[in-house]
Amino acid sequence: MSTLNHQWFLASRPKALVTPDVLQLREPPLATLEEGQALARVKFLSIDPTMRIWMADIKQYMPPVQIGEVMRAFGVAEVTESRHPDFKRGDKVLGLTGLQEFVLITGKESRAFQKLPSIPFLSDSHFLGTLGVNGLTAYFGLLDVGKPQPGETLVVSAAGGATGSIAGQIGKIHGCCVIGIAGSDEKCNWVKNDLGFDAAINYKHADWKEQFAAATPQGVDINFENVGGEIMQVVLDRMNLHGRVVLCGLISGYTREDPALASFAQVLIKRLRIEGFIILDYGAKFTDAAKQLGMWKMAGKLKDKQTILKGFDRAPEAINMLFDGSSIGKLLVEL
Amino acid sequence: MSTLNHQWFLASRPKALVTPDVLQLREPPLATLEEGQALARVKFLSIDPTMRIWMADIKQYMPPVQIGEVMRAFGVAEVTESRHPDFKRGDKVLGLTGLQEFVLITGKESRAFQKLPSIPFLSDSHFLGTLGVNGLTAYFGLLDVGKPQPGETLVVSAAGGATGSIAGQIGKIHGCCVIGIAGSDEKCNWVKNDLGFDAAINYKHADWKEQFAAATPQGVDINFENVGGEIMQVVLDRMNLHGRVVLCGLISGYTREDPALASFAQVLIKRLRIEGFIILDYGAKFTDAAKQLGMWKMAGKLKDKQTILKGFDRAPEAINMLFDGSSIGKLLVEL
Repeated sequence: MSTLNHQWFLASRPKALVTPDVLQLREPPLATLEEGQALARVKFLSIDPTMRIWMADIKQYMPPVQIGEVMRAFGVAEVTESRHPDFKRGDKVLGLTGLQEFVLITGKESRAFQKLPSIPFLSDSHFLGTLGVNGLTAYFGLLDVGKPQPGETLVVSAAGGATGSIAGQIGKIHGCCVIGIAGSDEKCNWVKNDLGFDAAINYKHADWKEQFAAATPQGVDINFENVGGEIMQVVLDRMNLHGRVVLCGLISGYTREDPALASFAQVLIKRLRIEGFIILDYGAKFTDAAKQLGMWKMAGKLKDKQTILKGFDRAPEAINMLFDGSSIGKLLVEL
Repeated sequence: MSTLNHQWFLASRPKALVTPDVLQLREPPLATLEEGQALARVKFLSIDPTMRIWMADIKQYMPPVQIGEVMRAFGVAEVTESRHPDFKRGDKVLGLTGLQEFVLITGKESRAFQKLPSIPFLSDSHFLGTLGVNGLTAYFGLLDVGKPQPGETLVVSAAGGATGSIAGQIGKIHGCCVIGIAGSDEKCNWVKNDLGFDAAINYKHADWKEQFAAATPQGVDINFENVGGEIMQVVLDRMNLHGRVVLCGLISGYTREDPALASFAQVLIKRLRIEGFIILDYGAKFTDAAKQLGMWKMAGKLKDKQTILKGFDRAPEAINMLFDGSSIGKLLVEL
């Protein structure tokens, strides 16, 4: 086997998109395994908007990635060699592998890696999306924070993304009228025609605000917000009294030096409840939720799509695709 | 008695402050009372920031005041003449009297007026402030939305105002460390030295952000927000994980055409809960809350201050005082 690892490390902090000076490659040798360690080869890397937050030196829910550190990322890996009692060669594991080809699992970190079950008809990569962080985020955000009731109107922004597309489908399962907002006709067609959203609005069309108003004649009860800025403002302006905003992401601001701003006036006047949440807070309930997501997926109630870039060298390019809107569904790098 | 009423009516909508073209005087004759009607002479008018919202033609929690209508306001009035079974001459009533000298109470509207008890040592005007809308707003906002726990840090903006000053004192009663933000040294001295806040920061001092950081070494758990804009942003930036923002007012934006903006980024990253609320939603619990407020006041645990302008003609001037910060405590017009 290879005696070199390949790693994308954070060489400097990005100003906007990920330029070549931000992530750089290095090839350190693979250390010989000590007792209590295992080595796993990464198969899929999950490319998520939150990675852009981790790169920034701002207060956040985890420590920012430090200059010189391997860039943080979720991934699925397969154990190639083990002197660890909990892992054996061939085990598939899920966790924060980082943007690298091989991940060393040590005693201390082993709890951060979860062994994957082998489920027929499911690619391992689904545990990074619908049955992983995105599915769990949609599940807890919508159900625990949004508390949807049958007949309510749910609006999901970034509806063509990995989390938004699941949030909308869970809304349909719970009897909501679901309106998606996305940035291309391809995404809108997918969420409306394949995923069963009641309507989908392309915010790049000049008259999208009028279209949005027409698609929400009863106003908006729940906003599952992934974007922030102007799109969020338009949704806030149509919210009903006592509406709820599940603040899941603010992707429109992640690549800007100054954050996207919005007015809190409607929050006051409409007595809205806005709650930020992070999936990490729900750790104890992951297993039950993942089981429910898996059952919905098996029953055909949760559909998904993957955009897969092949090749470890394409990781930085993949991150930028999140911000130019060119990926659809779950974005992955396959090694 | 006088046979003319005096009314401030909305003649045009304000752009910023209340200019002479916005509120104008008229003197319609007083109608002869019909069966089921009572007439009451206004003694005190409550001057509140929300009046500026009522003047604007925007979606809000009550219909905006229409051009030509008497300007809406809370007041205390004394019944001078009655053919109404529920009211007799000399009764004191509290309700939406409007900015006028006499208010006609008809059968339909009579439920909107509440008879005031006569309580020793309390001026009727207290039922417009500490024991009225401001006290109830502070009470439900802080306790029901903010849910303070002993030892938590509570920040109150517009701390020298009628609602903020009460919210901070209720925070002290519940064992919080309470930091006030206000716009003058006089207000800061009052809330710190007379009301017992742990610290008070004058946001007009150049180094107020550093002072604020120094006064909140444990971060901020609850923000009772009355101001919005930059002040809110500074508080949001110091909030702890799972902090709560009681969105009570956004006075910094009321006199601007474009609303004060702020970033939602901290709401996401810190998993904050922001809730707008309006006192009208708590009608069923008013009596119990007012009793509690009254007991605290009798026990010396709630102190207040009034800024009283004498003369009906000073009502427009009084409204503007809310926005230039020249009033302290509860602002009233006495007729």
